[in-house]
Amino acid sequence: MKSPGGDLPLFGVILAGGSGTRFWPLSRSQYPKQVLRLLGTESLLQSTIERLLPRIPLSQLAVVSNEAQADVIRLDLFRKGWTDIRVWLEPMGRNTAAAVGLAAVLLDREKDAEIMAVFPADHHIGNQEGLFQALDLGAELARAGYLVTFGITPTRPDTGYGYIKAGDQVKGKEGGFHVAEFIEKPELSRARAFLQDGGYYWNSGMFLFRREVILEAMARHLPALYQALRRVGEGKQSVEAAYRSIPSISLDHGVMEKAESVVVVPADLNWSDVGTWEAFYNLVAKDSRGNAVVGRAEDLDSRNCLVFAQNRLVATIGLEDVVVVDTVDASLVCHRDRVQDVKNLVERLNSQNLAESVHHPTVERPWGRYTVIDAGPGFQVKQVEVDPGKRLSYQWHHHRAEHWVVVQGTALVTIGAETKEVASNESVFVPLKTPHRLENPGSEPVRIIEVQTGSYLGEDDIVRLEDDFWRLAEEVDGH
Amino acid sequence: MKSPGGDLPLFGVILAGGSGTRFWPLSRSQYPKQVLRLLGTESLLQSTIERLLPRIPLSQLAVVSNEAQADVIRLDLFRKGWTDIRVWLEPMGRNTAAAVGLAAVLLDREKDAEIMAVFPADHHIGNQEGLFQALDLGAELARAGYLVTFGITPTRPDTGYGYIKAGDQVKGKEGGFHVAEFIEKPELSRARAFLQDGGYYWNSGMFLFRREVILEAMARHLPALYQALRRVGEGKQSVEAAYRSIPSISLDHGVMEKAESVVVVPADLNWSDVGTWEAFYNLVAKDSRGNAVVGRAEDLDSRNCLVFAQNRLVATIGLEDVVVVDTVDASLVCHRDRVQDVKNLVERLNSQNLAESVHHPTVERPWGRYTVIDAGPGFQVKQVEVDPGKRLSYQWHHHRAEHWVVVQGTALVTIGAETKEVASNESVFVPLKTPHRLENPGSEPVRIIEVQTGSYLGEDDIVRLEDDFWRLAEEVDGH
Repeated sequence: MKSPGGDLPLFGVILAGGSGTRFWPLSRSQYPKQVLRLLGTESLLQSTIERLLPRIPLSQLAVVSNEAQADVIRLDLFRKGWTDIRVWLEPMGRNTAAAVGLAAVLLDREKDAEIMAVFPADHHIGNQEGLFQALDLGAELARAGYLVTFGITPTRPDTGYGYIKAGDQVKGKEGGFHVAEFIEKPELSRARAFLQDGGYYWNSGMFLFRREVILEAMARHLPALYQALRRVGEGKQSVEAAYRSIPSISLDHGVMEKAESVVVVPADLNWSDVGTWEAFYNLVAKDSRGNAVVGRAEDLDSRNCLVFAQNRLVATIGLEDVVVVDTVDASLVCHRDRVQDVKNLVERLNSQNLAESVHHPTVERPWGRYTVIDAGPGFQVKQVEVDPGKRLSYQWHHHRAEHWVVVQGTALVTIGAETKEVASNESVFVPLKTPHRLENPGSEPVRIIEVQTGSYLGEDDIVRLEDDFWRLAEEVDGH
Repeated sequence: MKSPGGDLPLFGVILAGGSGTRFWPLSRSQYPKQVLRLLGTESLLQSTIERLLPRIPLSQLAVVSNEAQADVIRLDLFRKGWTDIRVWLEPMGRNTAAAVGLAAVLLDREKDAEIMAVFPADHHIGNQEGLFQALDLGAELARAGYLVTFGITPTRPDTGYGYIKAGDQVKGKEGGFHVAEFIEKPELSRARAFLQDGGYYWNSGMFLFRREVILEAMARHLPALYQALRRVGEGKQSVEAAYRSIPSISLDHGVMEKAESVVVVPADLNWSDVGTWEAFYNLVAKDSRGNAVVGRAEDLDSRNCLVFAQNRLVATIGLEDVVVVDTVDASLVCHRDRVQDVKNLVERLNSQNLAESVHHPTVERPWGRYTVIDAGPGFQVKQVEVDPGKRLSYQWHHHRAEHWVVVQGTALVTIGAETKEVASNESVFVPLKTPHRLENPGSEPVRIIEVQTGSYLGEDDIVRLEDDFWRLAEEVDGH
């Protein structure tokens, strides 16, 4: 493996704390954008890591996320077998300056971690070779003490991105430029001029720098943040206490725009921040009428629409520039010019404490997944799918009994002291307060219908006695 | 009860054979528009009958529908306790001339059925008193030998309706006019002129005539149809054979536009044919932005939209003139100018044999209803709700076993020779080929989760041994 940092190996820091409200209803607060399989069979987080692996080994990677999303992030890594990747959890979101600062402080414990390469977990990069070239050059510049950003060569006058204006070339470093100016999302006319003039690049949110260089810059430009995190590094303060005091600010605003020695490495990466449904529309294939269809849809005469039909039949007639996103429990119909407002809508849903903003009816688990298929007063029905060779935790419930009907495969079921095989078309009853376990010893999926009855059916009514995964200490999470 | 026909009592004929494809996905071929509860708690068919009852008793009413919809029509009448109403079934749809002709021929058997009053089953009439006045005058004119139509005073230049131009007043009959002309759906400019000129009325599809007068007119203008139906009346031909030979034509085109002695009774009935989602939008309340919302929806800045959200959360942003109709298994998003094309879309779905064009996941039954909540290879899960005091048929299945978990109420369950009470949180197993029955002896609903397993799970795998309803002879229909 070629080490882009030369004597100083790269350490990759993946920022995976985004809530992804802009992809509602496909994203939920408990199923954020970075774990969505938006483009292909891998999640954006998985793709981000996968594309780095030829240059940065798993042991040199850390994912920074937050405690509320810990389970879903760990599960996404677990699905790929990446259980070695460090997961650093922030107690709450405090934007990218805090996340990068925390990583830099925690990296003090690591050897071979002098140069930090920071990547958002939820962007798309089509040109992997271009990324490697940019990484090589960026690492060289970082090694020389620069704060390095990657600037994406713009392909259209996009008003949804910030821009970086390149200044003079870094002496002796072809392809690296001093940053003349960071520019906020521009008006369309200005974006057009940037494209025509050249020398302007989209601000990608990817960075390279030496650990001590970014910490010095933070000490200077974000002293309160630096001091709080330094005390964390020295073991004198908890992360939680530090985070309560530090400001929420982006690394761009807080450091890069103020610091000296900031350079940009222009790169043509076929990049997208996949920031909205509109960005997604731009990434996927369209038919001759400009319609992008994912899933099961029927259309008459619509133009330039995006239809994302996850399970139900969606029919469209005579629409123009409309985004339709259909999920099991919620649908969005939005004019394409208004996709930025999806986050405002989700804020409204959040303020009403609606389940549809928190999770999907189908919830992924390390052993498989379950889907709530029906619910009413005093009962809830789930389809539970156990992956081959996996088993749920050994557990019991205070308030609910469960009827299990096996509809596919043969399950190994433990209820109280008894363990037995339960085949397809057989059923068992799990009384409340009785320890039980569901296991799939076979090589095909086991599927059961679980009818829960009881006075309280919340996912937090679970006492885990044994678990094959990482969940023994946590009692907030079902199954 | 006042008899509007004087010496000749009215006999009401309700035409309920429409497939209602224009209200997809709310309507399905097995759940047509006339049984939809679009406006309030009664179906359009129930409302049509309810508003006639002050003038025409149940014993003087017949519903003409077709065999494919027999069950759903009977069930809609059953829900109101109207089991006495005659239901005459056409073997296939042949438009209104055939339906009215069949009713006239079958009426030969009835006394007190000299004057036929014909009403579509699926229209809205807001002004019931106006209807009674029109009925009184129309019956007088019918008694005198006229073919009477009702013309609706137009309130806007609607291009979706045919128009009737009124000529001279019928001598001595204030409020009745000879028909000068039937006019097909006009262009907008022409419709505007009609509205300005006055004397033009919307063709409502309601008629009054003496039985022998309409039969004479059919003999003259639709001789093939008349001859075929006459042989039915004489018992010389089956309805099926007759229908195979007769033309599909509307009563307007086939008879009214050609016959002499056709008169129109103008009426201001606050009428709508509820013909499209646009007509529905016009009927319901709108907010200050012109949005009509039925169900659970959240909106940002949309205007003049209709959102019909039957169960799932539907969010809309920045739309204009869009209809969104969301049901459990299918969604429609359609520009308001294109609602007429919904029927073309449904034709396409039909040609693909899609379940979503045939029925809903929730299916009404005389004993209650069931909803398919999950399905997969070799299994299907239903929530079954049994109304108080009702029971399903005593039945068995060739190919499927059933697990029942009671989640609400206490059921009386018969399996083979054994009958027992099964309370909430208890379950039973029904092996295949075993006669069984589910009954709700209590005064609250009984709800069960039914997990079916087997090689074939179609609704037609049912052998009924006893039934409380009308379904013993039929084996095509589930439960």
